[in-house]
Amino acid sequence: MSVSIGDVERAAERIAGRARRTPVLELSPGLFLKLEAMQHSGSFKVRGGFNRALAAREAGELPEAGLIAASGGNHGLAVAYVARALGVRAEIFVPTVASPVKVAGLRALGAEVNQVGSIYAEAYEASAKRAAETGALEVHAYDQSDVVAGQGTVGLETLEQTGGVDTVLVAVGGGGLIAGITAAVAGRARVVAVEPELIPTLNRALAAGGPVLVEVSGVGADALGASRIGRIAYEVTAAAGVESVLVPDEAIIEARRELWRSCHVAAEHAGAAAFAALRCGAYTPAPGERVAVIVCGSNTDPATLA
Amino acid sequence: MSVSIGDVERAAERIAGRARRTPVLELSPGLFLKLEAMQHSGSFKVRGGFNRALAAREAGELPEAGLIAASGGNHGLAVAYVARALGVRAEIFVPTVASPVKVAGLRALGAEVNQVGSIYAEAYEASAKRAAETGALEVHAYDQSDVVAGQGTVGLETLEQTGGVDTVLVAVGGGGLIAGITAAVAGRARVVAVEPELIPTLNRALAAGGPVLVEVSGVGADALGASRIGRIAYEVTAAAGVESVLVPDEAIIEARRELWRSCHVAAEHAGAAAFAALRCGAYTPAPGERVAVIVCGSNTDPATLA
Ligand SMILES: Cc1ncc(COP(=O)(O)O)c(C=O)c1O
Ligand SMILES: Cc1ncc(COP(=O)(O)O)c(C=O)c1O
Repeated sequence: MSVSIGDVERAAERIAGRARRTPVLELSPGLFLKLEAMQHSGSFKVRGGFNRALAAREAGELPEAGLIAASGGNHGLAVAYVARALGVRAEIFVPTVASPVKVAGLRALGAEVNQVGSIYAEAYEASAKRAAETGALEVHAYDQSDVVAGQGTVGLETLEQTGGVDTVLVAVGGGGLIAGITAAVAGRARVVAVEPELIPTLNRALAAGGPVLVEVSGVGADALGASRIGRIAYEVTAAAGVESVLVPDEAIIEARRELWRSCHVAAEHAGAAAFAALRCGAYTPAPGERVAVIVCGSNTDPATLA
Repeated sequence: MSVSIGDVERAAERIAGRARRTPVLELSPGLFLKLEAMQHSGSFKVRGGFNRALAAREAGELPEAGLIAASGGNHGLAVAYVARALGVRAEIFVPTVASPVKVAGLRALGAEVNQVGSIYAEAYEASAKRAAETGALEVHAYDQSDVVAGQGTVGLETLEQTGGVDTVLVAVGGGGLIAGITAAVAGRARVVAVEPELIPTLNRALAAGGPVLVEVSGVGADALGASRIGRIAYEVTAAAGVESVLVPDEAIIEARRELWRSCHVAAEHAGAAAFAALRCGAYTPAPGERVAVIVCGSNTDPATLA
């Protein structure tokens, strides 16, 4: 079930020309921002979605019924985007609390939206049941190897575009992004996991020796709020000895403002979390250390940026 | 008085590590956005400012009194940024109609702000008079060869970062940016000048055989609203046979929205003008033509992006 660099390299070939090769900005000497916030649909999530769907298509297993996913946020937008690009249907299950703006965004991408349950877990149950009925291809938000391998392409590009770094800082929700990047840069760069203090999903799992349930709250909860780390993410990051740091919500808010102030980069809170670790000192690079920060999402109301 | 590629190359050496090497995004195969909107102070203008000030410093002519400029907008912000970075004073003259937000921005960068006259020309007169008194180094918004050479570094970077293009689309105000880029890419790429229909400063000059006064209005007026093209810009672009196209304000508004919608790039209207030429068909690339679009500024209220 683990994911290897070979899986990530195959994903990169598959999704080339579909997912965008997002640019890198060198903010100061040796400090690179990978601007995945400029990705199609506003986050890295299309990478995993394309890889999952295209791998199924290669195997002759992309069903008539199209793609199905549960998400109140960026994953749903990404799956809807991928389905439209590939000319197949998308059915997205969201909790009834999902914001009307997000639901409208999903519909604008042509997805069929089902609002079920008051929390994500209930929407997820409903989507799994529906998938069993229709035969649609389930695209998990983080815990499928093709999804993880797709997200890992962010790591390959980061190494290529920077000419190599010592360290990559990555925000963690269910852990698809960090697992993919950890596989991609294995042996070439160290990975640091950054989580809000209010959502220490990986942090607690690493301490406990396995995935555990945590309470989730705070500004990052809409995108980073998985209540248990994914199994693939736990295995890959624990095996690689990924370092885990926590950041307070105030640091995330400040980092997001600073991205706007200093370079007019639009980021959502989750997208600024990794940068927050540098700003607040949760991670302090050694002198001369080359660091890449993944700015992973920008689905945010721009009126709140300044 | 003309500007050569050698001047631009020397400018690039001078300002390296001061102005940011902004990233390039390949929006679709062969269509590149040079994201100069992420430059320090929110526009390319710091390039010319740094080159002017550093060239003076090399010659032992950077005065005690620091830098002085007239501007109600991006040029003023840029000169204030440059002065702060170099540890010298900045005095900026703005017309009394300048927005309080811009004035506050200038003050936040440590500049001394003087509000004089109801139009730019009066603020400019006052700044010239004051410069004669204090001996401060005047940084013109476009019509000085060191300023033009500095702006031209955008063109050098664009060729390097894209691996070469056939055509560069550039918005025109007083013409410093287009003159510099035309010099930088001479013999390697064609330059197309893009202006709002309501501010045809270069367009009219090329038709008339020399700079002429035009009326200025519309959404681009705050940044592109020079009422006469600069002498350097006229000479350089006329000699190079630069093509000139005009775009309606609606196309600029649509292009700015599309930059936000498709890749969450924040641009002000002037910053989206060159992209508008592609969107509305004012410029149509040939099949396979490689095109770079300079997204040149982002000093805008983010609440108006979506
Ligand atoms: C912007 C953003 N950043 C980070 C994450 C976390 O990704 P993962 O669940 O793969 O850890 C998400 C997940 O939705 C996201 O949308
Ligand atoms: C964002 C932006 N774009 C374009 C221009 C025009 O530049 P130039 O006067 O060099 O033609 C300006 C000038 O202020 C600007 O601020």
